[in-house]
Amino acid sequence: MSEPSGPAEVDAVLDPAHREAVVDLLGALAYGELTAFSRLASDADLAPSLSAKAVLARFAVTEFGHFELVRRRLDAIGTDPDAAMEPFVAALDAFHERTAPQTWLEGLVKAYVGDGIARDFYREISAFLDPGTHELVTTVLKDDGHAEFVLREVRQAVDADPRIAGRLALWARRLVGEALSQAQRVAADRDGLTALLVGSVPGAGTDLAELVRMFGRLTEAHIRRMQLLGLSA
Amino acid sequence: MSEPSGPAEVDAVLDPAHREAVVDLLGALAYGELTAFSRLASDADLAPSLSAKAVLARFAVTEFGHFELVRRRLDAIGTDPDAAMEPFVAALDAFHERTAPQTWLEGLVKAYVGDGIARDFYREISAFLDPGTHELVTTVLKDDGHAEFVLREVRQAVDADPRIAGRLALWARRLVGEALSQAQRVAADRDGLTALLVGSVPGAGTDLAELVRMFGRLTEAHIRRMQLLGLSA
Repeated sequence: MSEPSGPAEVDAVLDPAHREAVVDLLGALAYGELTAFSRLASDADLAPSLSAKAVLARFAVTEFGHFELVRRRLDAIGTDPDAAMEPFVAALDAFHERTAPQTWLEGLVKAYVGDGIARDFYREISAFLDPGTHELVTTVLKDDGHAEFVLREVRQAVDADPRIAGRLALWARRLVGEALSQAQRVAADRDGLTALLVGSVPGAGTDLAELVRMFGRLTEAHIRRMQLLGLSA
Repeated sequence: MSEPSGPAEVDAVLDPAHREAVVDLLGALAYGELTAFSRLASDADLAPSLSAKAVLARFAVTEFGHFELVRRRLDAIGTDPDAAMEPFVAALDAFHERTAPQTWLEGLVKAYVGDGIARDFYREISAFLDPGTHELVTTVLKDDGHAEFVLREVRQAVDADPRIAGRLALWARRLVGEALSQAQRVAADRDGLTALLVGSVPGAGTDLAELVRMFGRLTEAHIRRMQLLGLSA
């Protein structure tokens, strides 16, 4: 596997508030990728076949590559990666403990729906930050064919037994609920990210109206993903 | 991560008994690597720090790369990888279920001691087979710095609290017992590997005397590893 190489340049001087937001974003993203690795590796054990298990394991390996990219970036901007990740450990671990999939399909829906929302959120936020950070986040979050695999597997299962659709739709709603509740917990704790979101970071172009539009876009993208899965949002 | 590249040439015509032994060996090795991936990824959750977690996750990623190499080889010799792995799933899964580590140190000792024996065994067997298979197995089984990390962590822990040594030595004996019991189960089932081991594969250079010497070498190497860990075998 060749590793995608992130942007090499690091903005020499970032405004302190901007820098704090960048460190928070990258810390959350790094730990998110590391837990995505663990979760996909563990979901692989639910796979119905050895080939499917290998596919999930490969997805996990991809996430680990992304984790290493983000960690290197934190290193490069002179931040201890462990310290940057630490504030997000409790919330991300809690999310995964409360949404541990019991079946192969639940695992796939979680990977697609949950990661989809997280992906959109990180990408939206990073657009307000320096171009180097934005480019790194975009590289890390590009879909590596996971979505296609998940859509095929879930649609086949729903076609074969339409009753599954209702259960999986409920499951997806639970995922979104848990994700929002953990996100609120993080927002209450982390001034860096919150200041960025409410527009008090100098040089970052967000404001409350933009924030509302952003949540609108996140919701629309979520509904579109559920439709692609053949599930009602 | 750059992937080590396996030997490209595939022996066009292998004697059928030889071929059966190769497929068995590679099938067992492939599933062994895939479960090593899952196990290391899951042991990473026992890590005492985020850096240690990342180290174990990287070990898991390395094992997955090895799995892909072996699977490609099975493909290249015209064998369905899943079918080749299938006969070894029950024994390897049973081994891991019965030896699930409860602590970070148990996980490390298992990775070092258990994988050490498996590694020696595969390497010994592959020496009796065609050069292409032997070279692939040697590439896949080379140590990627895992041993050094494990030795440092375990020795530090034993130095800090010498009572740990007795518990870990018992744990290692249990691992060896379970490994032998699962290996016997596989040997009873799989004519391909067994025929190779008892010298009935034409062109493969083993006999019973050599087999006894081989088990002697495996035992010696195990005792050496235990000594390096600072544990009594």
